[in-house]
Amino acid sequence: MSERIVIVGGVAAGPKAACRVKRLMQDAQVTIIDQDTLISYGGCGIPYYVSGDVSDESELRATSFHMVRDEAFFKNAKGVDVLSGTRAVAIDRQNKQVKVQSVASGEEREIPYDKLMLATGSQPFVLPIPGNDLDGVFTISNLHKAIEIKRRIARGKVGKAVVIGGGAIGLEMAEALADLWEVETTVLEFMDQVLPRIVDAPMAAMVVHHMRNKDVTVHLGEGAAEILGEDGQVTGVRTAQRTIDCDLVIMAAGVRPRSELAGAAGLQISPMGAIVVNERMQTSDPAIYAAGDCVEVMHLISGKKFYAPLGSLANKEGRVVGDNMAGIPSTFKGALGSFIMKAFDVCVGATGLSLDVALAEGYDADVALTAPSDRAHFFPTEAIVCYQMVFDRRTRKVLGLQGFGPMGDGISARIDAAAAYLAMGATIDDFGTLEMAYAPPFSAAIDAINAVAYVADNLCDGRLRKTSVQSFLDWMDNFSSQPDWVALDIRHPAEATPFVTKYGADLWCAIPYNEVRQRYRELPVDKTMVILCDAGTRSFEVQSFLNSVGVTNTLVLSGGFNVVRRMGVDWYPQND
Amino acid sequence: MSERIVIVGGVAAGPKAACRVKRLMQDAQVTIIDQDTLISYGGCGIPYYVSGDVSDESELRATSFHMVRDEAFFKNAKGVDVLSGTRAVAIDRQNKQVKVQSVASGEEREIPYDKLMLATGSQPFVLPIPGNDLDGVFTISNLHKAIEIKRRIARGKVGKAVVIGGGAIGLEMAEALADLWEVETTVLEFMDQVLPRIVDAPMAAMVVHHMRNKDVTVHLGEGAAEILGEDGQVTGVRTAQRTIDCDLVIMAAGVRPRSELAGAAGLQISPMGAIVVNERMQTSDPAIYAAGDCVEVMHLISGKKFYAPLGSLANKEGRVVGDNMAGIPSTFKGALGSFIMKAFDVCVGATGLSLDVALAEGYDADVALTAPSDRAHFFPTEAIVCYQMVFDRRTRKVLGLQGFGPMGDGISARIDAAAAYLAMGATIDDFGTLEMAYAPPFSAAIDAINAVAYVADNLCDGRLRKTSVQSFLDWMDNFSSQPDWVALDIRHPAEATPFVTKYGADLWCAIPYNEVRQRYRELPVDKTMVILCDAGTRSFEVQSFLNSVGVTNTLVLSGGFNVVRRMGVDWYPQND
Repeated sequence: MSERIVIVGGVAAGPKAACRVKRLMQDAQVTIIDQDTLISYGGCGIPYYVSGDVSDESELRATSFHMVRDEAFFKNAKGVDVLSGTRAVAIDRQNKQVKVQSVASGEEREIPYDKLMLATGSQPFVLPIPGNDLDGVFTISNLHKAIEIKRRIARGKVGKAVVIGGGAIGLEMAEALADLWEVETTVLEFMDQVLPRIVDAPMAAMVVHHMRNKDVTVHLGEGAAEILGEDGQVTGVRTAQRTIDCDLVIMAAGVRPRSELAGAAGLQISPMGAIVVNERMQTSDPAIYAAGDCVEVMHLISGKKFYAPLGSLANKEGRVVGDNMAGIPSTFKGALGSFIMKAFDVCVGATGLSLDVALAEGYDADVALTAPSDRAHFFPTEAIVCYQMVFDRRTRKVLGLQGFGPMGDGISARIDAAAAYLAMGATIDDFGTLEMAYAPPFSAAIDAINAVAYVADNLCDGRLRKTSVQSFLDWMDNFSSQPDWVALDIRHPAEATPFVTKYGADLWCAIPYNEVRQRYRELPVDKTMVILCDAGTRSFEVQSFLNSVGVTNTLVLSGGFNVVRRMGVDWYPQND
Repeated sequence: MSERIVIVGGVAAGPKAACRVKRLMQDAQVTIIDQDTLISYGGCGIPYYVSGDVSDESELRATSFHMVRDEAFFKNAKGVDVLSGTRAVAIDRQNKQVKVQSVASGEEREIPYDKLMLATGSQPFVLPIPGNDLDGVFTISNLHKAIEIKRRIARGKVGKAVVIGGGAIGLEMAEALADLWEVETTVLEFMDQVLPRIVDAPMAAMVVHHMRNKDVTVHLGEGAAEILGEDGQVTGVRTAQRTIDCDLVIMAAGVRPRSELAGAAGLQISPMGAIVVNERMQTSDPAIYAAGDCVEVMHLISGKKFYAPLGSLANKEGRVVGDNMAGIPSTFKGALGSFIMKAFDVCVGATGLSLDVALAEGYDADVALTAPSDRAHFFPTEAIVCYQMVFDRRTRKVLGLQGFGPMGDGISARIDAAAAYLAMGATIDDFGTLEMAYAPPFSAAIDAINAVAYVADNLCDGRLRKTSVQSFLDWMDNFSSQPDWVALDIRHPAEATPFVTKYGADLWCAIPYNEVRQRYRELPVDKTMVILCDAGTRSFEVQSFLNSVGVTNTLVLSGGFNVVRRMGVDWYPQND
């Protein structure tokens, strides 16, 4: 008899495993079970469907050659049976069968398996606050909800919206609502930055600054306390600070693995509720595999299991399941949590550990920050980008990279190259010589990723003494926070003079970069001088020179004004 | 006494090393010697200066903060002395001094050094053909020549141009001439493809097809036999096939290392004429370093020394020289020859070994080719890209990656990620799980780089049987070249029917992808069926299914019609 393969879950990992194992074992009988009627869709595309970039939901369920992936498609093209509208309610591991129930009729039956895969995905976390069940409160958990949200907006029923949660989905949904539909949108983030644990504060602040410029209201450190309603319909959101009127609430407060079925069957579940799998994506029962948003995977930097509910990982894990079910011992070694997000005209990306996470994990971690040109500075499409490298001082290993810049694929290029390198254990020195393909329309002779590694190298070896962005911002807000600091502004006089005029020459000392060697005796050497330029590079050169003449009480502002201006400071004379 | 550091060569590697060593040892006396008066310029920007993208040559010599890098800049900002217009004529290693000569006066003197660096760069290869010294024949070897070329064009003196050499500089110059200036431009390439040894034939053909669509004439397999002139002025180029009228000839037939100075001093020189250095960029004399276009470096895949005259490598090598001269034992382990080039609206990139080179090096090499969407196929900016992965069948190591697609940073992203991975010895399986940051505006859930690794995996394990692009093209040109072949076109009937109509149902069998499982008994199983789709993916699925029903005489066209159409075939019913 042919091998019976049963797969619970038909969105990403499940269909991928089903098609792969069928290709490898055409005589296997492969069945996908899903409680939904819409299957095999690109869930990450939901914000772009809501925004209107994708006009019809069926495009999210279509192949690149424009066939909709429905039951008939799986049957005819793939030879895979799909039981949609069918819920898996229990696994009988002893007898190797899954009890399923028709969602429509409630009728139950048993489906036998030789190998079983759980691709049960995740469920959105619903904040336990009053009003969370009002009409008009949506999670982004499946296509039906997306269709309903878009229907309401298109009918003009949504003038104001509140997005609860400043993670990737929350921010993407905020853009979707605000951009094309011009919905008055507010994002509430409980933490003091958006994208917490994904990127560090400076990068998060740049995203927020840009979104605010695009008329999205963002409140940080502010959670939703209650969702208000009338006649069962949402009318607003109350926080500790204010009440915000709205017709729509998007609850994007993260997702949790769906592991009830696995847990009830006695499979090993992690403390955070994910199904535990090995590198071959096998659960604690070797006949049962699991993949996608319901499992946790190894973090390739920390060596610890972590939860990374990402569609791209689900597909890769699904292929590994397919291989293993067919007898090919493929492995999924782990992930870095690589991340990229569009926010209107900018994008932000990250891979590996953020500084916050690295410190929490116990690394001797520090960051290098720089803000150079993204390509040859003389090329017309050149733009400034900001990169932050997280590294371990003791081992010189790079732990993570974050980037912010204009919308396009340039940030991806650096994040992806870093991910490949990080997966192999690369050090600062490896990044310093990483060979980015160079031509002026694409990159600089010294690519930004090399440049940020140079900064890390100089930091790690103690050649570069810096102040953090936050310390500098605190000082700009309140000069008495660091009473012995003065600024040493080495930019062109056209840039520095407005500051000297505003703050006075005692606080703001300006000597152009190329005059420091001649004029350093003018410096107030009894103070701590914070050296300021656009990207931090010239500041380091000046610091090196000043060291050599015995002036060592200097600090470099990492990333320079290119970084702090993008964070949206209110003190910059001509703020952008 | 302070350390005396002398650097011969002031374009890329030399200034980088000078500035780095000075930062590390401010008390060192650092001197750059260059025979030219224009130094420290971005030579790779010359085509964009000629095209007009860069309006003034001084931009190529400026920093990102708009200071021109002239002698005064190096002195004031960097603390580095520059002797421009000064030629180094001999090295006295015994007494550690360099004999230099003023280009203007011929006056000679000795400059003592403690450490010396040779950054003597490369010189263009001038074809030994009659007329190579005529007025109007230019190499792209320095800024003066670029300025003169642009001056002639801007004055309307150039109506027609011939570019000799279809390497990167030749093609970039052809675009520069043809695009904005509308110079009638012909490229002559002696080999049967452009970019030989950098990319393989299919990628090269795509570039040529696009350039021809942009009105650049490209003749392949056709060398220049003579440059014709009247009154000392170029009037044309004669080849074995034709005579081409022109007012300008760009000779872009490659470059050779400049190692005469090193050779005369008894330093070790490689058979191809490059200065031999170790990983710390030391020559055979430990007091003398060398870097940039005058050295050869280790190829990180082949493990052999190779010549990679690239500005980005020169800068990285220069920094390593600076470190070592200051007592930091940095190493430059080698390179992959990463390459990227804009050609009008497309770009082409590569890293590692091409198939041609890999086979010549003795690898058991093969290629995987695919042509998927560059991002989520439902995202509005989606486009088709073509990737070719070169791998070693025996070890499953990836040897190289090539990509072709629309102009932008998406190809860079994959080439750069591949370069990082290749530098670490990644296998096909590593590429299959490479974690490219995913969101629909940037990538697909299964990224193109994963997809091409999947193809390589299926090829390597013998699950995928393919025909090469060239065999298929040969067959389309002459069906009797493979008399037992028939096409099995599994695309949508709207795509397949015009072919059936044109070639007849005996030669062109069409069954849509999703009907093959039901209709396979209609197939002409006594023939060898070449399965055809857009990208090759569906064809592999169909091949897998047909295997299972005993139909094994099938071949998949790697990359499908997406690849062959981009190569500019004349038989496609609605050619693009």
